[in-house]
Amino acid sequence: MPMPVVRALIELSRNLYQTMLMNINDTNKKVYPKIVVIGGGTGVFTVLSGLRNYPVDLTAIISMSDDGGSTGALREEFGILPPGDVRRALVALAHTDNRLLSELFNYRFEEGQLKGHAFGNIMLTALERMTGNFESALDEAGRILNVQGRVIPVTLDNIRLCAELENGEIVKGETNIDIPKHDPNIRIKKVYLEPKTYANPRALDSILKADLVILGPGDLFTSVVPNLLVKGIPTAIKKSKAKKVYVVSSMTKPGETNNFSANDFLNVLEKYLGTGILDYIVINTKKPPLPRLKDYTTEGKMMVEAENLPGATGNGQTIPPKPTPIYGDFIRKSGFVRHDPEKLARVLVSLI
Amino acid sequence: MPMPVVRALIELSRNLYQTMLMNINDTNKKVYPKIVVIGGGTGVFTVLSGLRNYPVDLTAIISMSDDGGSTGALREEFGILPPGDVRRALVALAHTDNRLLSELFNYRFEEGQLKGHAFGNIMLTALERMTGNFESALDEAGRILNVQGRVIPVTLDNIRLCAELENGEIVKGETNIDIPKHDPNIRIKKVYLEPKTYANPRALDSILKADLVILGPGDLFTSVVPNLLVKGIPTAIKKSKAKKVYVVSSMTKPGETNNFSANDFLNVLEKYLGTGILDYIVINTKKPPLPRLKDYTTEGKMMVEAENLPGATGNGQTIPPKPTPIYGDFIRKSGFVRHDPEKLARVLVSLI
Repeated sequence: MPMPVVRALIELSRNLYQTMLMNINDTNKKVYPKIVVIGGGTGVFTVLSGLRNYPVDLTAIISMSDDGGSTGALREEFGILPPGDVRRALVALAHTDNRLLSELFNYRFEEGQLKGHAFGNIMLTALERMTGNFESALDEAGRILNVQGRVIPVTLDNIRLCAELENGEIVKGETNIDIPKHDPNIRIKKVYLEPKTYANPRALDSILKADLVILGPGDLFTSVVPNLLVKGIPTAIKKSKAKKVYVVSSMTKPGETNNFSANDFLNVLEKYLGTGILDYIVINTKKPPLPRLKDYTTEGKMMVEAENLPGATGNGQTIPPKPTPIYGDFIRKSGFVRHDPEKLARVLVSLI
Repeated sequence: MPMPVVRALIELSRNLYQTMLMNINDTNKKVYPKIVVIGGGTGVFTVLSGLRNYPVDLTAIISMSDDGGSTGALREEFGILPPGDVRRALVALAHTDNRLLSELFNYRFEEGQLKGHAFGNIMLTALERMTGNFESALDEAGRILNVQGRVIPVTLDNIRLCAELENGEIVKGETNIDIPKHDPNIRIKKVYLEPKTYANPRALDSILKADLVILGPGDLFTSVVPNLLVKGIPTAIKKSKAKKVYVVSSMTKPGETNNFSANDFLNVLEKYLGTGILDYIVINTKKPPLPRLKDYTTEGKMMVEAENLPGATGNGQTIPPKPTPIYGDFIRKSGFVRHDPEKLARVLVSLI
């Protein structure tokens, strides 16, 4: 085939492809249900990587209180918002054609000056410096990774998570709460942000327009609740016509949620969100065989019990009308006792 | 249109687009002239960014002796090959759709631990660690940047450039030769590599299959000649049926090529390459107005004189049959006195 013809055909097929893509995107906006996932840490990654296989429009709203490790060092040196959790969310939404790019994004240096830094954190830092703000950096990183959906910081303010323990002690900085330097038998009484924090308007807008809002799974006080401490977020969730669901963690966490039942998780969440807002609560009831739990027991972690829960029978408690509990096996078949992306996505999509 | 039909059409148009792309790539291989650019530093960037606008198949062969700044630090800490010059070549060949990605690749951190590092150098380091070797890292970076053409290290050995000065002093490390700590009035007698270095087979293969081989422009002893010190490269250039052209620098460099005329540049190059191999030598004869040269004069740099050149008349010297000199205005209209990518590309393409 002569070159000009080949070139013309390429141009034609590319235009066709792009037109079709634009159409599907338009169609997306009209047809695909909008799901907003609110959290931080690995919980958001789990939910997103399951949901991304469904025909849904995904938005991840990420807490901005992480200040440990590579993220903490970059926050301190560059004064940027924390890149770690948004990096994980971006990777969860990245196009599968870019597997190496996703791996690169999560790659952690093991030597020299760069030791401990995740490559993606460094990239987000460079993009923030180039574009002048963190949101544009996320958008550009999203373009490079060809993400399906979007990742939105819950706030654009530079904040710090603080905790008051049961004994009155104050702990400042998420990393100090997360990896407790205090007696791990002492639980958290309440958490708050310093200074007072306003919501990112894009986060509010996404929540208001959502068909389904998912909170969790993830560490209650350090990943989920920090989003609810941001002024405007609980009200937006309340106002939104979306179905609202909370996915309870599968394991407790020493120094945070020691001996918490699912009901305890719910009570804390509702303390920050408000009661009567959640429509569903997803609770894992599957218990893996003991050998899989051995390491957890050593670390003081336990499976979250569902017994004291709304809808659970035999304990004589009043059953509130909302949220409706959804019990089931939602954890992985082997390895870490964590939520399985597939199982979780299946039940979440069924709620729309 | 119903969704399944839209999806099917998208798939169809994408397949068509990809098939057409594959066809053009096949066609490329048969039709487009193969140009190999050999050098290092900014000279290669200039040549590539001019040539990339022509329908040619571009390969950049890059010297591996840089050991200064960000590159030097990463070499030392990670034991990798030098990323700086290949980074510049990759950016020159990157698809223009990726402007921000190219800018990101060249972005240099200004604060903290990362200060002085070019982002692209960090990315190449991470890719080297992930893929296990530098060539794969370059290939992957090329895919991410969507480069047209390829960038090949001249050698895969870990080497060091050394120089013997006119006064017998030995200087080790390219950065020490480049930014002379010795008296800048003392010129270089010869350069060599430690340890003995073997060529990258892909570099040899590209040279042997080329239609045009371009040496320079760029610092003679620290960017161009280091490639010719690699065992196998001069022989491959000699054996290749390609036209061979040397682009002389527009300015001299203190401590390296003080007072060098174009003929001096050629003599040094031929000392390492062999005589009678080059077909053409491209020499700038345009002299910019004095104000543009002021800063250069202060630094001890001069415009390279073309007077003692083959083909130049009036000095009674024997005119050798090769290389044929091509005189002209090849520098930029304003700013730095450097080769203009467009002007240079035009004359180089005319030689095929």
